[in-house]
Amino acid sequence: MQTNLDETIQFLKQPGEGSLFVISGPSGAGKGTIVQALLPRHSRLTLSISMTTRVPRRGEVEGQHYFFVSKEEFESRIEQGQFLEYALYNGNYYGTPRTFVLNKIAGAEDVILEIEVQGGQQIRKNWERRSVHIFVMPPSRANLLNRLQTRKTESEEAIQARLKRAEEEMGHLPDYDYYVINDQLEEAVQTVSAIIQAERQRIFQSLLKGEKTI
Amino acid sequence: MQTNLDETIQFLKQPGEGSLFVISGPSGAGKGTIVQALLPRHSRLTLSISMTTRVPRRGEVEGQHYFFVSKEEFESRIEQGQFLEYALYNGNYYGTPRTFVLNKIAGAEDVILEIEVQGGQQIRKNWERRSVHIFVMPPSRANLLNRLQTRKTESEEAIQARLKRAEEEMGHLPDYDYYVINDQLEEAVQTVSAIIQAERQRIFQSLLKGEKTI
Repeated sequence: MQTNLDETIQFLKQPGEGSLFVISGPSGAGKGTIVQALLPRHSRLTLSISMTTRVPRRGEVEGQHYFFVSKEEFESRIEQGQFLEYALYNGNYYGTPRTFVLNKIAGAEDVILEIEVQGGQQIRKNWERRSVHIFVMPPSRANLLNRLQTRKTESEEAIQARLKRAEEEMGHLPDYDYYVINDQLEEAVQTVSAIIQAERQRIFQSLLKGEKTI
Repeated sequence: MQTNLDETIQFLKQPGEGSLFVISGPSGAGKGTIVQALLPRHSRLTLSISMTTRVPRRGEVEGQHYFFVSKEEFESRIEQGQFLEYALYNGNYYGTPRTFVLNKIAGAEDVILEIEVQGGQQIRKNWERRSVHIFVMPPSRANLLNRLQTRKTESEEAIQARLKRAEEEMGHLPDYDYYVINDQLEEAVQTVSAIIQAERQRIFQSLLKGEKTI
């Protein structure tokens, strides 16, 4: 006999609308490495793909590394409000397409997005649905400096600018839901993994009113 | 040189005030087994000890299994608002002492409490600090019936009453923060474990204003 008990349990067992996980934090804190390690550990977890006006580099695949569009198309999409966030770096636009994320979460996928602090702030403001914001930080200033220097891609001046910016970005911590200190990589990955797992067990009023969305 | 970056990180690394985790759900869902399996997996996690007016059974130790007090003392403590929740079962009082929980969380311990749904509701109302409420449920009505029957401690009539109550208790799901379906025990324990781990990474405004409490 079908009962309320069984109906509720069956309802909860069905995957509902996905969530958007925003992984943010200072440059050099290890966001990208964490995200890459997370993807194979969770079913129903998709990496957000950015749109850009930059020219594809050798080996970059349309719709896999980026969606490549012209500057005119990007600007027209900005006007139509099609980006959760966007920014201009070195004369090229980069943005997170709203439709991509909407389609994924409608299909019960969680979407994970690695982004600079400023972009994360834009998403918090522009995204009308559920997003979970995780701030990844280095274990110390010395460690961050070391990581930035090991990259060997930037001048000492550029590195000092990044450190200064990291200290400013720490001021945005209160806008986040969770923090993760990336000291040991495996530990940090496991912690973000636990956050994703826990968030999938959350109860929301609207979820229980039969919509299973928030 | 000490910087904002290092100060913030050091601050976050220090354990702050603990949280109260309330594990609740229908009788027979496996709350007790889950809680016992959780305790050795987390440092800084303490089981809440109840106070009771019931006579100690052979082998029960004061302050370990229960705090044993007289009926007069229990009632005087009720009047003083010393319980997060209490109930009268078969003529004996059982309650959760507020001071025990307060002392533990002040010492950066998380406290875990296994309790019936009604007691969980009382805690939500009476506890002025942070509590995380987790609803543990069976995978199906048939499974719950089977578990209750396997106990062999109750009449068929009592079991049917528990099932009916379980269905009513499911209506309180929206008052909880998380749900966990106890199908495979190890999976359920791991899920509650992830919730505890994730909750320890949460950012609260007040935590960042230098109080590290909520």
